[in-house]
Amino acid sequence: MIRYFWIMIIGRNYEKVIKSVLKKIKPSEEEVKEYNSFMDYIVKELNEMTPKDIEIKPVGSIAKGTFLKGDADFDIFILFPKSYYVRDVESLGIKWAKEFVKKLKAKRKKIEIAYAQHPYLRAFIDGKEIDFVPSYKITDSSEVETAVDRSQLHTEYIKAHMTEEMKDEVRLLKQFLKGIGIYGAEGKVMGFSGYLCELLILAHSSFLNLLESASSWKNPCYDIEHGLSEVNMREKFKAPMIFVDPVDENRNVAAAVSKTSLSIFIHYANKFLKNPSEKFFFPIRERINFGWMKKQLSMRDSKIYLLEFDKPNVVDDILWPQIYKLSSKIFDNAKRYDFSVFDVYSFEKKKGEKSKIGMIVEFEVHSLPKMRKIYGPPIYIMEDVEKFIEKNKVTEPIWIENERILAIGKRKFCEAKEFLKDFIKNREKYGFPPNLRKINIKILETKDIVKKYPEYLYSYLKVRNIP
Amino acid sequence: MIRYFWIMIIGRNYEKVIKSVLKKIKPSEEEVKEYNSFMDYIVKELNEMTPKDIEIKPVGSIAKGTFLKGDADFDIFILFPKSYYVRDVESLGIKWAKEFVKKLKAKRKKIEIAYAQHPYLRAFIDGKEIDFVPSYKITDSSEVETAVDRSQLHTEYIKAHMTEEMKDEVRLLKQFLKGIGIYGAEGKVMGFSGYLCELLILAHSSFLNLLESASSWKNPCYDIEHGLSEVNMREKFKAPMIFVDPVDENRNVAAAVSKTSLSIFIHYANKFLKNPSEKFFFPIRERINFGWMKKQLSMRDSKIYLLEFDKPNVVDDILWPQIYKLSSKIFDNAKRYDFSVFDVYSFEKKKGEKSKIGMIVEFEVHSLPKMRKIYGPPIYIMEDVEKFIEKNKVTEPIWIENERILAIGKRKFCEAKEFLKDFIKNREKYGFPPNLRKINIKILETKDIVKKYPEYLYSYLKVRNIP
Repeated sequence: MIRYFWIMIIGRNYEKVIKSVLKKIKPSEEEVKEYNSFMDYIVKELNEMTPKDIEIKPVGSIAKGTFLKGDADFDIFILFPKSYYVRDVESLGIKWAKEFVKKLKAKRKKIEIAYAQHPYLRAFIDGKEIDFVPSYKITDSSEVETAVDRSQLHTEYIKAHMTEEMKDEVRLLKQFLKGIGIYGAEGKVMGFSGYLCELLILAHSSFLNLLESASSWKNPCYDIEHGLSEVNMREKFKAPMIFVDPVDENRNVAAAVSKTSLSIFIHYANKFLKNPSEKFFFPIRERINFGWMKKQLSMRDSKIYLLEFDKPNVVDDILWPQIYKLSSKIFDNAKRYDFSVFDVYSFEKKKGEKSKIGMIVEFEVHSLPKMRKIYGPPIYIMEDVEKFIEKNKVTEPIWIENERILAIGKRKFCEAKEFLKDFIKNREKYGFPPNLRKINIKILETKDIVKKYPEYLYSYLKVRNIP
Repeated sequence: MIRYFWIMIIGRNYEKVIKSVLKKIKPSEEEVKEYNSFMDYIVKELNEMTPKDIEIKPVGSIAKGTFLKGDADFDIFILFPKSYYVRDVESLGIKWAKEFVKKLKAKRKKIEIAYAQHPYLRAFIDGKEIDFVPSYKITDSSEVETAVDRSQLHTEYIKAHMTEEMKDEVRLLKQFLKGIGIYGAEGKVMGFSGYLCELLILAHSSFLNLLESASSWKNPCYDIEHGLSEVNMREKFKAPMIFVDPVDENRNVAAAVSKTSLSIFIHYANKFLKNPSEKFFFPIRERINFGWMKKQLSMRDSKIYLLEFDKPNVVDDILWPQIYKLSSKIFDNAKRYDFSVFDVYSFEKKKGEKSKIGMIVEFEVHSLPKMRKIYGPPIYIMEDVEKFIEKNKVTEPIWIENERILAIGKRKFCEAKEFLKDFIKNREKYGFPPNLRKINIKILETKDIVKKYPEYLYSYLKVRNIP
């Protein structure tokens, strides 16, 4: 009896939080109506402008009805039959899209050609963002040639299977993921795509059911359409999380979800269930507590540096994987020289059109003695042993350990900063990713990070704080 | 023509060195005569004292004629037929040996009961050392029950196959190995036994031939009797060096030879061939150069400590493997705590009847920052995560890397000496070998090592010197 009472209270608590969140993220009826009629308008106009065999098809979250309030991203596919050449698909599609935008009445207009696997037109119209994507019309995953093509099938699948109630549940999930920083499959986030959110709600009916399930996830795997066994899925897809695409059994919709993102989701699913609160959906952006930061820094006997550079002119989905690759190169190479990296934290600071990329590098072991044990060649490779003896000025009696000759030498880098300097200088040697090879990289000391990027250093320290 | 001339000179050089060394190590005719007649006397006397079915048999290097000048170690086996009980073999054998020693006319006499796998009597008679070993008489390796039994067969094998010339070659090899510090199969040395020396000369006829061969050894394997293939030998015996016992194809005579000892032999075989010199046989014991030592110490930014303890009352063959095991425990555990050990060097300093054991421990990385990255449990093991959060005072937002929760903690040992103190304090935890668990161990600082054990520190630094 008493137990039941408590469940009621907790239940009411979930309800209250969810209701309040939905109020903030669910588009109003007017907004939905406006978006839909705008979408209809685009479709109608483009249909009139284009030949009969061209189909205009809305895709994405507006078409599927799972968009968040204010998220005015319109995705329009201009679909060609297979009889068209690729170059015509691209040129005609973009030409028609441009003509349509030209005719459109609006206060502010801007267009740009963007690239996924193929070019498409992106237009900014009075606060709305519209992507016009020329593509071939397909009806089955076997016809898919680019990842973009598949969106047609995804939109159809979701529209066919999702109830009205579920759409709000998808919105809750999307906002929850945004709040905890893992919404989006792009290279920077390595989190959950919108489509994955929709599928997870299809699988669990509701946001709360999903969290309940996620709270005991380890390496979740889902297949709601093809009847693959778990063993089968795990053999097919090597990834922390698996959700087999209902429209293509050879694709893992959750392929982009990193181990860390998955762990974050599991952790906060638990936290929310224990203590439901709006803060998970809308984290409070704390003001920087400089006093606390100063104290944290003074308590640390580590060394914190920042690698700073202008953001290279490549798309995020290419750049960020390279930045993360560079992080792991810092870890590995520091270790090679007997240092140990505490953590690397990368961020982008926008400043108008330009951005700076910063990589906070904190060293745990940052200072090493000069003398170093050098392992030479096996004693039975005479020539190498003689070279080693000469090079390292080895004297008799020599030092032997197992089959190797040893010597004492000077360490190349005694201070972590010397290593970092060498690291950004000899980029070929350290195997820098291509887009980070030619740029100008600066090393900043802690005091300059505090001055120039206090907000990011603060975030970094908040997560990695000394209790 | 010119080449031939040089070979002649080098040849003459070898000859000169070898001749000079032999002069110092080969027992004189008188010495040989004296030893042989003493051996004959022992055999005759014991034969008269014992029943007809008991056989008295000289074994070891005097019996085989391969002993070095002044090396008056007499090994006498008192052999019983299988009809005797083990306890009678031991008690009767030792009783007769004692009676014999009692009758012997000598200025100084001392006896003690020693133990191999069975007890035997060791007598010190006017500078001679005589071991009386009661054992069963055997004629084939299938009858061997203890390692000691096998000596009978070894002695017979060597006597049957070794020429007079070869005996001097064995002496050269033994002295060479003594000079470079790897003569003896015992646990402290892990080098070449006398029997292995004899077999190596049997295999190569001469000392120089052996060195020639050893100079291109890697992992040598020999079988001069059973016709085993190399593959077969390597499968049978896992050891850096293999020499199948001619009297027992299931035994590797070189089993005790460590990788390091083997490497030392290969190295100095090469050195000698390039530049023959008596110094390999009789290394000059250098006087300690305190100035040099002081300079070496001041150049090192390592930390050198000494573990010092009274030598426990166990035989060397049990003690030294334990000391070496402790060394590797120091290496491994220091690494566990992020230190790195440069090297450990163990020695015994005799002082009358008592001995001190010293273990020089030099740390390369000896000083570490206080803060430390702690890897917690996987995020999906909720209970452990909660314990981890509480224990490490983790605050939100938590720190996640892959599937684990992380925290910052305090390092247990920031200085290598703190680790060493803990190491000798918690011996159970660190798995100290049995005979080193209860003894009193002290930690000495460098300046005290210089005062108390300068000769060993000097040897240590000579080998591991900063050029």
